[in-house]
Amino acid sequence: MAERFVGPELARLIELMSRLPGLGPRSARRAVLQLLKRRDSLMVPLADALAEAARTLVTCRTCGSFDTTNPCAVCASSGRDDTLLCVVEDVGALWALERAGVFRGRYHVLGGVMSALDGVGPDDLNLASLLLRVEADAPGEVILALSATVDGQTTAHYIAERLAPFQLKVTRLAQGVPIGGELDHLDEGTLFAALSSRSLM
Amino acid sequence: MAERFVGPELARLIELMSRLPGLGPRSARRAVLQLLKRRDSLMVPLADALAEAARTLVTCRTCGSFDTTNPCAVCASSGRDDTLLCVVEDVGALWALERAGVFRGRYHVLGGVMSALDGVGPDDLNLASLLLRVEADAPGEVILALSATVDGQTTAHYIAERLAPFQLKVTRLAQGVPIGGELDHLDEGTLFAALSSRSLM
Repeated sequence: MAERFVGPELARLIELMSRLPGLGPRSARRAVLQLLKRRDSLMVPLADALAEAARTLVTCRTCGSFDTTNPCAVCASSGRDDTLLCVVEDVGALWALERAGVFRGRYHVLGGVMSALDGVGPDDLNLASLLLRVEADAPGEVILALSATVDGQTTAHYIAERLAPFQLKVTRLAQGVPIGGELDHLDEGTLFAALSSRSLM
Repeated sequence: MAERFVGPELARLIELMSRLPGLGPRSARRAVLQLLKRRDSLMVPLADALAEAARTLVTCRTCGSFDTTNPCAVCASSGRDDTLLCVVEDVGALWALERAGVFRGRYHVLGGVMSALDGVGPDDLNLASLLLRVEADAPGEVILALSATVDGQTTAHYIAERLAPFQLKVTRLAQGVPIGGELDHLDEGTLFAALSSRSLM
């Protein structure tokens, strides 16, 4: 819905901003108002940063992640554990693990998960490059850090099968009660997984 | 806080996005992820729209609003009631009234309100241009649509005094219970105003 009380440039800016996740039409207008008030300190730098990021954006030839360098910042960094390879669905999952600071190995980004509903098969994922990489680098362990959804776990099982000939350790993330989670707010699937995988205290 | 697991261009983009109202560091990262995935359909158009808006942004010579045309879209539009002049604090207030579609007159944007605390006096506002405009256009009524805060109402009273010599109708917005507001959630000031200005049913 175009705003009729502003010029076409501002209406277009509001429309584009409202497509960002977490921003509806109302917060997009608030964001644009803030940009108008801070033209030189925010609007111009943001325009430049977006143009620069779009110009330099590449897919990492090693792991399949997006970054502005190739190889990406994670693949290029030294001092990471080359014997651990963590397979993630997308860049968002990679960022989440990096933010948590709980993993110091290498990543491989699939670019999605298999989905019968969306017509995504193994050939649509960065799977060939994963197999080549496992063959070349021979990591000791591949962690399948995929979503605990049907599609995520189907994909994990498929990849585990494809990795079987390489004689390496293939693991997946634990499933259970999230930290801080209250039992009466959890779904049956999580409760079942938490009970099935219970451990000795 | 710079992200160490992405290139400097993306870290800068996340930092700038997180300065927008309604976006914290977490949602800024989500927004940037979305931009990465939709480079051509969202990232590039947004960069262009921001640059274009920044390039064309001007202050309207008539009302003091921001837009990409001069005079702005509202001042340029015909078919509005020239006898009604609505004085607002900033562009956000103008947009809010236009969104509601409840006012079809003209606007004048003060660019703030007087504030002893922030050292904002009458000379820091677009007040001289308001007086000149009232003298030239002779509207029948000036509506002081300022915030129902101490600073907003102080400013309204000051402007009303300055407009007294022009012999025109000067009004302000009604104060009372907002539509949908529940009495037990309203503050004392609002309840007092609503009771004082009660009307016959």
